[in-house]
Amino acid sequence: MNIYIHTLLDPALSANITGAFGQHHRITFRTEQAVQQSAPVSFLEADAILGNPPLAWFENAQARNLKFWQLDSAGFDQYRQVDVNAKVANMGDWFARPCAETIVGGILALYRGLNKLAVLQKEKKWVGTPIREELGLLYRKDVVVLGSGTIGLAVRAILAGFGANSKLVARSSPEADIHSREALFEVLPSTDIVISTLPGAAGKYVDEDFLKAMKKGSVYANVGRGSTTDEQALIGLLKSGDLAGAVLDVTEKEPLPSESPLWEMDNVILTQHSGGGQANEDAGKAANFIENFSRFLEGEKILFEVSLSRGY
Amino acid sequence: MNIYIHTLLDPALSANITGAFGQHHRITFRTEQAVQQSAPVSFLEADAILGNPPLAWFENAQARNLKFWQLDSAGFDQYRQVDVNAKVANMGDWFARPCAETIVGGILALYRGLNKLAVLQKEKKWVGTPIREELGLLYRKDVVVLGSGTIGLAVRAILAGFGANSKLVARSSPEADIHSREALFEVLPSTDIVISTLPGAAGKYVDEDFLKAMKKGSVYANVGRGSTTDEQALIGLLKSGDLAGAVLDVTEKEPLPSESPLWEMDNVILTQHSGGGQANEDAGKAANFIENFSRFLEGEKILFEVSLSRGY
Repeated sequence: MNIYIHTLLDPALSANITGAFGQHHRITFRTEQAVQQSAPVSFLEADAILGNPPLAWFENAQARNLKFWQLDSAGFDQYRQVDVNAKVANMGDWFARPCAETIVGGILALYRGLNKLAVLQKEKKWVGTPIREELGLLYRKDVVVLGSGTIGLAVRAILAGFGANSKLVARSSPEADIHSREALFEVLPSTDIVISTLPGAAGKYVDEDFLKAMKKGSVYANVGRGSTTDEQALIGLLKSGDLAGAVLDVTEKEPLPSESPLWEMDNVILTQHSGGGQANEDAGKAANFIENFSRFLEGEKILFEVSLSRGY
Repeated sequence: MNIYIHTLLDPALSANITGAFGQHHRITFRTEQAVQQSAPVSFLEADAILGNPPLAWFENAQARNLKFWQLDSAGFDQYRQVDVNAKVANMGDWFARPCAETIVGGILALYRGLNKLAVLQKEKKWVGTPIREELGLLYRKDVVVLGSGTIGLAVRAILAGFGANSKLVARSSPEADIHSREALFEVLPSTDIVISTLPGAAGKYVDEDFLKAMKKGSVYANVGRGSTTDEQALIGLLKSGDLAGAVLDVTEKEPLPSESPLWEMDNVILTQHSGGGQANEDAGKAANFIENFSRFLEGEKILFEVSLSRGY
């Protein structure tokens, strides 16, 4: 088959793809930084593609040999009207996983004392046994996740492994368990952890009323946007002990001003908007292509398969 | 029914049990610290029990009304020959979960930079974006777990939620995927993370050969016993960069001597043998009794049901 790699990859990742498919297939890598206006032959004759070529290249039923297409994004709305008879895969929750791992990792750090232990290590102080009595567990906790996008779904998948019970909140998503603010306020008093994945468009959804409705001793975590949360109210409830702790990947102002009391609160973990990060995003694109195209060739189920409107 | 609570609980937890069952059942709480030599009437007439009474109390087909028995331990070997016609529940993985959460939390801290961020917070330093490029993911990592006891099984359950692939290693356990050191050494070169849950009886299982067989850039984590691991070899491979990092809940000497280089290595996370800790172990015992006995009364499946040899 003819394989066209539109995603610009470094030599090591290109070599991974060549290693996986070079023996039996012809592979063409795009090398120019700028994308050409008209579709190159390697695109037009491709049986398989990795990446997101310009929409214009697909006009007039181009790429008519295309059988497998690995997008290098999670979203694919711009291609909804593209007319190809190909299996199409997106990046699924690949970009959501870093956010989900950071926020659950932060909650785990709070429960298991890992932030305190990191500071103790820096100071070369052995505390040992006494810290055990301060530690909590995610196991069998009741969690509410605000938002049911890819981050919310990834958080739910992770929490399931911990034996925690999670409810997703979203107005109209069929994936959600709670669909209104009223229904949410009914469960807040018995919820151990609230994790927000809300975008800035949600306004100040987590306002003082929300935070005061939360269970005494519960934990608030935010990996959405800082603007969604009443930070002053949060600080007050953390200081009074009504809330046991907070994990904040985002804050109202970033960088967090040096005068913010959040810096010095030892029941707060600040992850400095690092949640979405990962060392090598392109490695995931190459790995997903290799895994999905191999599955396609073997006739197996593709991870993260998506349907374009006129695809099969 | 007659309920006998053998586990000594504080007033708040006793009140939880009374609140759950006091309206329709007669509850007797043991209050003496010392256990009586002969079985009290509240035990002999009990339909339901929480706790681990002395084996002698069960002799001569005592406790003949017993229908439901919640042990407050994970193990139940000492009761194997007890002759009761009761549903018996143990604490399942309740005691294993803290160890599993600490070790996975430590690995997550290493991947997501949470230990560095904790120290930065202490120093009130905002780093922000640049740290994103250092971060890794547990998602879709290949993990080997040494040991298939309750800790190993809890680790596997947690890793599944992260979308990581785990293989358990144990000589004869049917739960394990790998049954010999030879088979293990075949997968080590392609394994991203090794998590040891081995007891001290395993000897120095993770010796220099083992550590050298691990994949370049992989991570070693130990929540078993420090004596199972060649610490000098581990330090050497961490310094050379052959191993990317380590999470150590246990070390050869505890407290860790101040001259150990592990203290100052920023690719090492030390959790100071805190892994097994949790704030209130008795809360779990009361919660498991309430949940399991409620399920028993409703005719539902009991969590962590176990079989004694002559029970049904």
